[in-house]
Amino acid sequence: MTRTVLESQTKTVTIGFDEPFCVIGERINPTGRKKLAAELEAGDFSTVERDALEQVACGAMVLDVNAGVVYNSNPNPNETEPPLMRKMIELVQGLVDVPLCIDSSVPGALETGLSIAKGRPLVNSVTGEEERLEAILPLIKKYNVPVVAISNDDTGISEDPDVRFAVAKKIVQHAADYGIPAHDIVVDPLVMPVGAMGTAGQQVFTLVRRLRDELGVNTTCGASNISFGLPHRHGINAAFLPMAIGAGMTSAIMNPVRVVEMEAIRAANFLMNHDPNGSEWIKFSRVLDAVEAGTPFAEAAKASSDAGSGRGSRRRRRE
Amino acid sequence: MTRTVLESQTKTVTIGFDEPFCVIGERINPTGRKKLAAELEAGDFSTVERDALEQVACGAMVLDVNAGVVYNSNPNPNETEPPLMRKMIELVQGLVDVPLCIDSSVPGALETGLSIAKGRPLVNSVTGEEERLEAILPLIKKYNVPVVAISNDDTGISEDPDVRFAVAKKIVQHAADYGIPAHDIVVDPLVMPVGAMGTAGQQVFTLVRRLRDELGVNTTCGASNISFGLPHRHGINAAFLPMAIGAGMTSAIMNPVRVVEMEAIRAANFLMNHDPNGSEWIKFSRVLDAVEAGTPFAEAAKASSDAGSGRGSRRRRRE
Repeated sequence: MTRTVLESQTKTVTIGFDEPFCVIGERINPTGRKKLAAELEAGDFSTVERDALEQVACGAMVLDVNAGVVYNSNPNPNETEPPLMRKMIELVQGLVDVPLCIDSSVPGALETGLSIAKGRPLVNSVTGEEERLEAILPLIKKYNVPVVAISNDDTGISEDPDVRFAVAKKIVQHAADYGIPAHDIVVDPLVMPVGAMGTAGQQVFTLVRRLRDELGVNTTCGASNISFGLPHRHGINAAFLPMAIGAGMTSAIMNPVRVVEMEAIRAANFLMNHDPNGSEWIKFSRVLDAVEAGTPFAEAAKASSDAGSGRGSRRRRRE
Repeated sequence: MTRTVLESQTKTVTIGFDEPFCVIGERINPTGRKKLAAELEAGDFSTVERDALEQVACGAMVLDVNAGVVYNSNPNPNETEPPLMRKMIELVQGLVDVPLCIDSSVPGALETGLSIAKGRPLVNSVTGEEERLEAILPLIKKYNVPVVAISNDDTGISEDPDVRFAVAKKIVQHAADYGIPAHDIVVDPLVMPVGAMGTAGQQVFTLVRRLRDELGVNTTCGASNISFGLPHRHGINAAFLPMAIGAGMTSAIMNPVRVVEMEAIRAANFLMNHDPNGSEWIKFSRVLDAVEAGTPFAEAAKASSDAGSGRGSRRRRRE
């Protein structure tokens, strides 16, 4: 059975076919968030703090940390990303006890992150590009960590799912040459926008099944890509995620501060028999009650998670 | 390719692997609706009228008509159901031009319905019970119509999905003996409540795939059973339907006057590549806009469907 084991300082999260879907929070990422990039350049980490706490309260099991800024003062990411990655990881690890997903296109930033991350983080990402394989796989081997493998290569992103499968297979084989096992490769089959390509959904469902059956690997994706450019995109996401989970997808990099998507995932976990007695669903239904009564989702989720840990503490004190 | 063809007076609805999911509206059914049963006994058909119009406006492609009343004045359904079925079908056919699903446990009511239904209705249902097979299959053959086959038999409803598959296979074989083709059998694999049986969802997904791959039949279900007894059950339904559609389910008997479920189905159609250019999704997104602005779903859907037919008429007039 394929199990990808991630660890924080004290907690273990397993991505696997028989596990609840692993939600990897995507928010701590200045790409496309100009305001956040400017804050980081000015040394203001308040948004990172809020994003860390909110995402975990809302149900993120792993937090992606990306330091991909382009400072006005220094446009060279090889210089800016490693120190910023260090700062962000230290900050996030001080706030929340969940495994991290160290996300960078700069190998130096990945290595800095790997050197200071507690436990067993996930690395995001390697691709099928030769240069990238040679830069990243030795790091993965050295630190004995799992890695996200994105199924594009030097020819780009193929629209043909068979080519994307072949790229994933090549990465798994290259990793094996380094002694990295398939259960430490989490393949991203690449999700295209269904508004631009009508077969985008079916491609993913078919690829996920093949990746699982033929390569025995876990899978992930940037879930919101599917609805890019469409009206009411959360409705598309909220159908896509259960369908992907039903096809065998085991994780996604996504925004967990969205009640519609998180409701869909929790319902899908229950329907996959990954929520014994529906206890997680029933707990989440109280958050839904609060949201219906007008409380913002992040706030309602925070209150529920505080109450949960409070009860836990009381129980422990009685022992 | 398996295609189950249903017809109203002028319209054809095809249930099939390459078709949008077929929503069969379940509302016209006095079972468990005491108020409706009392109205019908008093000769008041206003609820039936409203249910017919609302369901079609909200996206029902087929309407189930069930006359299963137990009158205070006459508790014998063999006497009460056939004339009531006739009345209800005449009424519904006069209001809306969609194929019907004639739903009764009383063979006489089914035959009455079949004798007056326009086009090619679906019959609901036959089971694997010997007596039921012998009573219903000759009717199906005589009227050359498709039938819902529920996978229980004289031993009851098995909790073992392999037994339910075997019952479905037996019904398909019996039907073949009568000259009824597999494409006119729409199997209901029976949906258990996931709150009572954790494997309920997975059972359905596995059964639907097997029914499709091994028997080549279309499938249906009473979708809301999955969430019976659970809080926020529409959230469970809205994940279950896309997952079932992803597994190959081709229709459901359900309440279409629920925006959450209908949104999930329309998104799933798009993701299955059964909504060319997303035009149905984009049309539906305007209904979602109106619902977000406070308009009740049935009303918003009605306005959209009226506007659509208005535009259609104008276009036709220009030709």
